[in-house]
Amino acid sequence: MQNVKVIIWGMGAMGSGMARMLLGKKGVDVVGAIDIGDKIGKPIFEHLGETFEGKENIKIGTVEEYITEKRADVVLLCTDSFTKKAFDKIKLIVEHKMNVVTSAEEMAFPKAQNPELAEKIDALAKENGVSVLGTGINPGLIMDVLVLVMTGACTDIKKITSRRVNSLSPFGAAVMEEQGIGISVEEFEKGKAEGTLAGHVGFPESISLMSTALGIELDEIVQDMEPIVTDVDRVAPHGEAKAGSIAGVAMKAWGKKDGETIIEMDHPQQIEPEQVGVSTGDYVIIDGNPAINVVNSPEVEGGVGTIAMCVNMIPQTINARPGLVTMIDLPIPHAILGDFRDQIHPEAKIVK
Amino acid sequence: MQNVKVIIWGMGAMGSGMARMLLGKKGVDVVGAIDIGDKIGKPIFEHLGETFEGKENIKIGTVEEYITEKRADVVLLCTDSFTKKAFDKIKLIVEHKMNVVTSAEEMAFPKAQNPELAEKIDALAKENGVSVLGTGINPGLIMDVLVLVMTGACTDIKKITSRRVNSLSPFGAAVMEEQGIGISVEEFEKGKAEGTLAGHVGFPESISLMSTALGIELDEIVQDMEPIVTDVDRVAPHGEAKAGSIAGVAMKAWGKKDGETIIEMDHPQQIEPEQVGVSTGDYVIIDGNPAINVVNSPEVEGGVGTIAMCVNMIPQTINARPGLVTMIDLPIPHAILGDFRDQIHPEAKIVK
Repeated sequence: MQNVKVIIWGMGAMGSGMARMLLGKKGVDVVGAIDIGDKIGKPIFEHLGETFEGKENIKIGTVEEYITEKRADVVLLCTDSFTKKAFDKIKLIVEHKMNVVTSAEEMAFPKAQNPELAEKIDALAKENGVSVLGTGINPGLIMDVLVLVMTGACTDIKKITSRRVNSLSPFGAAVMEEQGIGISVEEFEKGKAEGTLAGHVGFPESISLMSTALGIELDEIVQDMEPIVTDVDRVAPHGEAKAGSIAGVAMKAWGKKDGETIIEMDHPQQIEPEQVGVSTGDYVIIDGNPAINVVNSPEVEGGVGTIAMCVNMIPQTINARPGLVTMIDLPIPHAILGDFRDQIHPEAKIVK
Repeated sequence: MQNVKVIIWGMGAMGSGMARMLLGKKGVDVVGAIDIGDKIGKPIFEHLGETFEGKENIKIGTVEEYITEKRADVVLLCTDSFTKKAFDKIKLIVEHKMNVVTSAEEMAFPKAQNPELAEKIDALAKENGVSVLGTGINPGLIMDVLVLVMTGACTDIKKITSRRVNSLSPFGAAVMEEQGIGISVEEFEKGKAEGTLAGHVGFPESISLMSTALGIELDEIVQDMEPIVTDVDRVAPHGEAKAGSIAGVAMKAWGKKDGETIIEMDHPQQIEPEQVGVSTGDYVIIDGNPAINVVNSPEVEGGVGTIAMCVNMIPQTINARPGLVTMIDLPIPHAILGDFRDQIHPEAKIVK
């Protein structure tokens, strides 16, 4: 078998991290990298600031250059958070008969908010004999898949609480702005009302993924975001919040049935939580038989976690039946420490 | 679609628990229950000490009575721990064209210790168009699948430590004897040398499952068991250990490559750990990028966990491609709170 061939579309922090991870692995080649503007024409090693022995130093190029029929086995698409924005790109890749793994949060379960686009993607993927998966650390693992895996030990469940308390300090300026770090409470409320504050994208997707797997029909999914106002000045590498301003966003959501909350999501994100005695972590609390009480502390950092999940799910996506797939359709995620080719099913849809 | 039909072979603690769980679920029927001796002819509700409305009160019967062609979609086999002992029963079920989920620990990855039998089971299953899965709480979830799922967030890994500190107090007299509870240190050493003390069954299986998924070839798997000698008298419902005698067994194993331990398993099991200040729990410690540090405390109790895992993996087994399958081949485990039929793929091999 030839090496597994991967194209990365979007050479920002996520795409660059995936490139770095893949270039350190056996049995897999990065055969394309797509971005726009100044990055075009730049050798990938130069862009990553690192040399990888035995690997080809391809140049970052355009969509037209790299999205050609069966140019790769899979395209890692890391340009968007929303299904609507990612749709045309996914369509283009699929029509060129390549599998897709995307970090777009809504693509973790696109049926939740874009059922028509989900159907279109499914039909297109089947038509072209490829699979499309959305994954990442969250949605994709911590607040949904990990929870589901733990429910496997339960005979029955009354309520699930999925909590992720994380630090935004490792993130760059773009995330600081998206999350409203340092703005006033008034600005926060205005941004929330106008929908310009993104907060966390993915709760309807995580909740729908879980309820679908568990086989429960929820009556409604309710979301809210609350400001985390800091009492002290906090300074992170790429953002700061003076006392009285916004140091983060507490995202909450509830999946309800017959007036009761079956699934509760609690996700406070802030800069420098340690400064105010908040210890970060991932929590799975299941009120069931048996009770489950999982803590992973500190939390899995979002950036590296998303990079790893997208790369580690490449074989499962290549091996899958054609169509739109989700994390509940595929074999369990896991790291790949050996040769990528050993992970590919002999009958899988791979460029021979 | 008709209800999913299940036969349970072995009406001990595990099989009875699975019957109770299934009889409380929608879209699934227990159409057979197999045991020997006095239990034969006994109505299942009487055996379980409980009535289940709208469900048939079948009688516990013989192998000949219930293992007939396509009598059920799946047989839950809970009679053995070892592949060699379970083999003839699996063969019989498969030849009658029914899928198998078994709690036999070695069947979680039979290739580890019985590669020839594993090949035979795989061939028989394919020939008869059914699937065979071995699962449970451990092996099956806590010390292997949960670990693998967490590695999904890692770009690279140096070492994995999988630890399960559990209490044997909920278990019955048989387990007390198997684990040597209350015997002297001399008796323990004799039993260990002669191989009459079972300890935990499943380390080579869990380690092989993990190394196969991760794609690493280990040079050797080493196992050991050490006595847990109690300083104080301990009394559990079905066993006791006087001060100076055996209160449990510390099972250990190491998966090594090039002289380094890549996977370490640590599993001390004892009665009444609380009496000596030992807090129980399940631990996943990954020395990797990122580091992972999962704690589930107290531990998932082995009995209910195994019952849940075997029942919850029924749909994945019915939906699987024919053959011998393992937890790394199938979609993620999860609880089933709705109708069992909603979990079955329309094209799956089910009794129509």
